[in-house]
Amino acid sequence: MEQGKRKIHIFDTTLRDGEQAPGASLTPEQKLIIAKQLAHLGVDTIEPGFPISSPGDYQAVQRISREVTGVEICGFARAVKEDIDAAVRATQDAERRRLHMFLSSSSIHLDFQLRKSRKQVIGIARQMVAYAKHFVDRVEFSPMDATRTGDEFLYEVIEAVIEEGATIINIPDTVGYAMPDEYGAMFTRVMQNVRGGRQVEYSAHCHNDLGLAVANSLAAVRAGVTHVEVTVNGVGERAGNCSLEELVMALETRKETIGVETGIRPEQIYTVSQMVSRAMNFPIAFNKPIVGRNAFQHEAGIHQDGLLKNRSTYEIMDPEQLGIPRSMIILGKHSGRHAIKHRVSQFGVQLDEGQMESFYTAFKELADKQKVVHDHQLLKLVGQTVNEVLEPYTLVSAQLVTGSTGHRMASCTIRNNAYGEESMFAGTGEGPIEAVVAGMKQALPFDAEFADLELYSLSSGEAPNGEAIVTVRVADQTYRGVAVDRDIIMAAAFAFMAACNQAAREWRPAVDAQDRRVAVGES
Amino acid sequence: MEQGKRKIHIFDTTLRDGEQAPGASLTPEQKLIIAKQLAHLGVDTIEPGFPISSPGDYQAVQRISREVTGVEICGFARAVKEDIDAAVRATQDAERRRLHMFLSSSSIHLDFQLRKSRKQVIGIARQMVAYAKHFVDRVEFSPMDATRTGDEFLYEVIEAVIEEGATIINIPDTVGYAMPDEYGAMFTRVMQNVRGGRQVEYSAHCHNDLGLAVANSLAAVRAGVTHVEVTVNGVGERAGNCSLEELVMALETRKETIGVETGIRPEQIYTVSQMVSRAMNFPIAFNKPIVGRNAFQHEAGIHQDGLLKNRSTYEIMDPEQLGIPRSMIILGKHSGRHAIKHRVSQFGVQLDEGQMESFYTAFKELADKQKVVHDHQLLKLVGQTVNEVLEPYTLVSAQLVTGSTGHRMASCTIRNNAYGEESMFAGTGEGPIEAVVAGMKQALPFDAEFADLELYSLSSGEAPNGEAIVTVRVADQTYRGVAVDRDIIMAAAFAFMAACNQAAREWRPAVDAQDRRVAVGES
Repeated sequence: MEQGKRKIHIFDTTLRDGEQAPGASLTPEQKLIIAKQLAHLGVDTIEPGFPISSPGDYQAVQRISREVTGVEICGFARAVKEDIDAAVRATQDAERRRLHMFLSSSSIHLDFQLRKSRKQVIGIARQMVAYAKHFVDRVEFSPMDATRTGDEFLYEVIEAVIEEGATIINIPDTVGYAMPDEYGAMFTRVMQNVRGGRQVEYSAHCHNDLGLAVANSLAAVRAGVTHVEVTVNGVGERAGNCSLEELVMALETRKETIGVETGIRPEQIYTVSQMVSRAMNFPIAFNKPIVGRNAFQHEAGIHQDGLLKNRSTYEIMDPEQLGIPRSMIILGKHSGRHAIKHRVSQFGVQLDEGQMESFYTAFKELADKQKVVHDHQLLKLVGQTVNEVLEPYTLVSAQLVTGSTGHRMASCTIRNNAYGEESMFAGTGEGPIEAVVAGMKQALPFDAEFADLELYSLSSGEAPNGEAIVTVRVADQTYRGVAVDRDIIMAAAFAFMAACNQAAREWRPAVDAQDRRVAVGES
Repeated sequence: MEQGKRKIHIFDTTLRDGEQAPGASLTPEQKLIIAKQLAHLGVDTIEPGFPISSPGDYQAVQRISREVTGVEICGFARAVKEDIDAAVRATQDAERRRLHMFLSSSSIHLDFQLRKSRKQVIGIARQMVAYAKHFVDRVEFSPMDATRTGDEFLYEVIEAVIEEGATIINIPDTVGYAMPDEYGAMFTRVMQNVRGGRQVEYSAHCHNDLGLAVANSLAAVRAGVTHVEVTVNGVGERAGNCSLEELVMALETRKETIGVETGIRPEQIYTVSQMVSRAMNFPIAFNKPIVGRNAFQHEAGIHQDGLLKNRSTYEIMDPEQLGIPRSMIILGKHSGRHAIKHRVSQFGVQLDEGQMESFYTAFKELADKQKVVHDHQLLKLVGQTVNEVLEPYTLVSAQLVTGSTGHRMASCTIRNNAYGEESMFAGTGEGPIEAVVAGMKQALPFDAEFADLELYSLSSGEAPNGEAIVTVRVADQTYRGVAVDRDIIMAAAFAFMAACNQAAREWRPAVDAQDRRVAVGES
């Protein structure tokens, strides 16, 4: 299998099936921006919406057909004339296009939802594929809930639509029920047993209800399927669809074994993932493969030690090739001497062996008490050892007035540690975080753009309850800060200060700037 | 395969490998609470920590060995005397115990991290397994990075440790590199080709770097492996470990095909998942299979329609059997008439056909403009049709003073819509949300306990940027409210109001209470 590589066609349905994730709807403008980015990522087909379902979706499909080039655009339709008409009209101006029509085939869907007999379903499928072929050459047909349909009727439906001119057969695992070997074998049987089964292309469409969407899609590829339907970040109805980045990186990482290739540019993956997450207000899990914030982070001492010696000891992909800043090491009770020494050296502090021993003991005691040892605590511990503190600025205190009416306003006191001076600043904004940040910015000698905020809260008010991760941009460089506080607004303020301290350390030429850009500041 | 079902032994390593997720460390007290819950869930083995790694971890393993009954406790150790001694001592008082020892076997780990020859590794493995057998009967051996080791040396290591008395062979996919068919086949080869390979038990341990941990574990089970190492919510180093709930529910949902069973009580899954997420401050992805908030939610009109007719049209598992409140339907631009009518009827409003048509048109227009149609907007639209508003209380306005020093205080104005009266209240708290909630509680005729808060923020300050989900408990019933606002504190306040309105509707006998308990209130 290692010679000529078969091309796998990546069919992106983030904007159609992905958008069906509860709460993830997009405006036509957002869809257009994402579609352009998907074309740049290198997907082969974009399914930008369900034209009949709403005027906004119709408009989105139409604008994307007109403005996005270099990819095939797919119109989605039930096996109903009005749906097909809307999909045909919306995709009229596309460079290349496809029509994707679906109709349930499982008994449970026929009996309870469609309330039609199998004979009626075959009739509708034939009639509607024939109708669609008047307008569009490439017609994809999906027997919905195919994996719970049973071979006999599945073959019958597929034979019928191939006879009427369907060129791509998608066999969706609509409810996420299939196992990988079953799903691959089903394609093999259809290819072998269906009349005309060798003259069409096949597509896989998997859902993740049992966590098997990627494995099922890979099994289909190995069975000879050439199209795979995916969404960015695996968003979609319920547990979502097959994740684009997981599928593509599995195919890429194991290409010698699987023997296929895609047109995806891996270095665009992280950017697209972030864009979709933001547009859909759909956070990415910490432990999401490929694009999660932990995907290339290592806490165990043994792993951290191995990584510092050779990255491939614990990493099978290079995060930089995915457009991700290099793996970060988080310090905690599992961290070993090597990683701690490395981190401390990033702040320009060199500890001798005796200092390192007493420092390590103090570190372990602190680490046992809490989840993570933050940079400011690390520096405090270093300070007790080498009697030096390196944080450029400290947020001493802040006060805020906020609410549903009137202006939000904040005051804050910031100490410049280089001079030991405290100054007070005030700011306003549309939200309390904006207000306090507006005040803090005035203390800095550079322009810091508040680029991104992530908030995490899992408890009600007992225990530490707010974690904020703030990204700032200073002179085209990006810095992140993390903080935990009982008050979520204060967590955001401390995290902003930590991110700005990262920037300020580079700002001051006295401190060694090596690796500073990608380091995570924590407060 | 459908007759006698083989028992699969669930080995939970949430408290050891799971805890190695960056930022997820637990205190010994937290570990004890979770271990008790895991025993109640029905896992067979708990690996509660890495005793040598820190005094806190040693203490956690010791306390769990003493206090948690009905499960096997596993001590974790490198192939090093001190590690084995610590693990043996920490697990001394367990009802039943196992020692789990690991040693790298891949060339890349030997060359770059261990810096030992293969011969040396075999020697150490033999010596340390023999040493461990002096203290513990059940010794599990893991050749670390086994899937990148190559058959020849892998067989050699496994033969050696079996000779010395290892009773369980774990073959970990340490870096998440294996494909399902490869991983299953590796176990088959080892069982067939290793001397003594038939007289030991086998364990699978998979990582999710390519999204294949569950599929790989299932492939191992089908190859005859009887132990599977998992973590709750799939937490763990990098992209995490095989997820307990996904593996168990795949085995359960497809038990007729796979022919195995576990001792897990599915109705405890959701509770344990929530507990671990909270303790580790590790949010669960919206689209996480089984336990994500979207896992049983449906937005597409066709799906919503199908569900209202028969739940199994789009659900292969029953969420109530997992301890999850029944699936929720989210209203958005993909929602059809049936789902909207159903939701409106939950508020006690019956629309006639003419009203429904004009209401549906207005709904679609609104839905095109925004992600989700919230209940208060739905009710406003209904009000324009039937001229009635059903929300018991409205949060009219609020003001807050907060910051890093002094008390947080809040005032709020609440309208009781039954009487049209507005009243003002004030409260204090340790955080601004606590303060405003303390004020709002005074407006209610019942005790509402603020049970849980989730905050989501993905943008910096442009666009809607804060979503809050609040759970309240009133007289042993649970109600949830959701709200979006530019100001995250106000989002939490509106969500609290929405949740209390859910409770208040049940409180007033005049309104039809059908299905009210599990409905999601949105503001």
